[in-house]
Amino acid sequence: MTELPKIRVAVIGAGSWGTTVAALASANTPTTLWARRPELATQIRDHNSNPDYLAGQELPDELDATSSLEEAVSTADVVVMGVPSHGYREVAEEAAAYLRPWVPVVTLSKGLERASQMRMSEVTAEVMPGHPIAVLTGPNLAKEIIQGQPAASVVAIDDPRVAAELQRIFSRPSLRVYTNSDVVGCEVAGVVKNVIAIASGMANGMGFGDNTRATLITRGLAEMTRLGEAMGGDPHTFPGLAGMGDLIATCSSTQSRNNTVGLRLGQGEQIDDIVESMNMVAEGVKSCPSVLELAGRYGVEMPITEQVVAVCHQGVSAADALASLMERTSKSEHE
Amino acid sequence: MTELPKIRVAVIGAGSWGTTVAALASANTPTTLWARRPELATQIRDHNSNPDYLAGQELPDELDATSSLEEAVSTADVVVMGVPSHGYREVAEEAAAYLRPWVPVVTLSKGLERASQMRMSEVTAEVMPGHPIAVLTGPNLAKEIIQGQPAASVVAIDDPRVAAELQRIFSRPSLRVYTNSDVVGCEVAGVVKNVIAIASGMANGMGFGDNTRATLITRGLAEMTRLGEAMGGDPHTFPGLAGMGDLIATCSSTQSRNNTVGLRLGQGEQIDDIVESMNMVAEGVKSCPSVLELAGRYGVEMPITEQVVAVCHQGVSAADALASLMERTSKSEHE
Repeated sequence: MTELPKIRVAVIGAGSWGTTVAALASANTPTTLWARRPELATQIRDHNSNPDYLAGQELPDELDATSSLEEAVSTADVVVMGVPSHGYREVAEEAAAYLRPWVPVVTLSKGLERASQMRMSEVTAEVMPGHPIAVLTGPNLAKEIIQGQPAASVVAIDDPRVAAELQRIFSRPSLRVYTNSDVVGCEVAGVVKNVIAIASGMANGMGFGDNTRATLITRGLAEMTRLGEAMGGDPHTFPGLAGMGDLIATCSSTQSRNNTVGLRLGQGEQIDDIVESMNMVAEGVKSCPSVLELAGRYGVEMPITEQVVAVCHQGVSAADALASLMERTSKSEHE
Repeated sequence: MTELPKIRVAVIGAGSWGTTVAALASANTPTTLWARRPELATQIRDHNSNPDYLAGQELPDELDATSSLEEAVSTADVVVMGVPSHGYREVAEEAAAYLRPWVPVVTLSKGLERASQMRMSEVTAEVMPGHPIAVLTGPNLAKEIIQGQPAASVVAIDDPRVAAELQRIFSRPSLRVYTNSDVVGCEVAGVVKNVIAIASGMANGMGFGDNTRATLITRGLAEMTRLGEAMGGDPHTFPGLAGMGDLIATCSSTQSRNNTVGLRLGQGEQIDDIVESMNMVAEGVKSCPSVLELAGRYGVEMPITEQVVAVCHQGVSAADALASLMERTSKSEHE
């Protein structure tokens, strides 16, 4: 039996989740992680650690790293884009120059391009036309996954052959990877969940407990589903790992930037002070106005998103926003 | 304008949730809470407190209480059954003798009758034939609801006129009550969520975090949906408040008996010791074998429930059960 040549993976972006995905893949196949800063690439390659984003976590010895996009991308058979939405297009354009034909591109980012309201898979398709595009998503808090805690992910792509290969590349004994052919649904789910996580954090910051959070998550899933279906997503996606699973994990976790922004808003801090104090803007803060624009375009109601926009961008207090949500008239659950 | 006579509500069972529901209703309409023990009824009526189940919480002055089932039921226009599954039929049979014609009966219990695998609405229909039967459910941790934290509930019944009236009776400014015509789905959701909460507690007790819990909840919802749909429930019910909402709240809360049982199992305690130390058996422990029997009868796979039965009734350790779950082959999310 001939052994097939190994698939080489390049992960672009050495944030906590990009680093974690690279670490997972490196256990299955040769993997290179691209970090913009040469010092960080050296640290990851030579000292097996990423103190900026995964402090205290030892990375696999077999994980390679570089700060040369050419080196990472030109030898890769699979490229994983782990860059946040606001820098995504620029890095993707640079990487596109080195991308070999047919190579599938996997996106990790859960945001929308501000000016265009495009999903990251759409930006990818525009910048890297002709490449199969997948989304890796699910309830995946980097620190828990990299510690080997039991979890599950979803790889979404409409090509079952590529899906099966990607499933194999990212699977670990502690990480079950499911496939899903619904790219649009998985992606919309990831974007909206960051917005709902802000709302959930706000309630938490105001001192409310598990019921309130569960209610916001559930009604948040309903509005995520409305938008996702209107945009062409499969209704089965939203109660799955990419929708509900990720929503629950994010809304429960202090590791989530979006949840943390909400928490601090709920405690009465101003959005500008919070944004200034964080070294990265939470995706939900950036994308909530775009989500609301999409909602308008598709004619769906998104009352929680509306309130998150009001608090993050229109100076409304978290207390007033939550009160507005509660004051809506009672109705049937399926309306 | 003539004022219509007020609807009188009787709540049967003064546990934490029965007491809370009675307190909610008493703000809208005359309400009597039945407690089996005369001392507890006196305490609730005269001292506005239920130290056994809601210690430290002041109850509304207008809430009446009695230990006479006849007094409570014979004057009631709505009867709410807040009795756990193992004593449900007996109390319902006693109450049936005093029930006036046409009076709707609302059940709160989230269990199955052990011998028959019947849902509480089915037991009610057998014992109180001809009465409209509703289920009140959702993410409702008693202590948070009674404190007035923002939350939402579902009242499930196939008669929209009765639904609207019940919605009005249980609504509060802090509690949105949604209606749902899917009684079967809402009820199956409540039963299965208690089983999944045990699994989620086990993972937590073993030291796993938010991803693992989110994954168990999400895959738990998938198996709840499979069973619920097979039994005739509406697929839209399960990602709603009665399914996912309640599942999230229960799996997150230390107030849940089912979650607590799981937590202690995950920490290595034996089921017999746990059951012995609790003053009430958790519904999920009692009902998990019945749920598995139903799964067999309807031909659906319920891998998490299987493992909960193994741990609660077959001497398997929580660690081995969780390992079995992770070892299943990777597949598509919708299989």
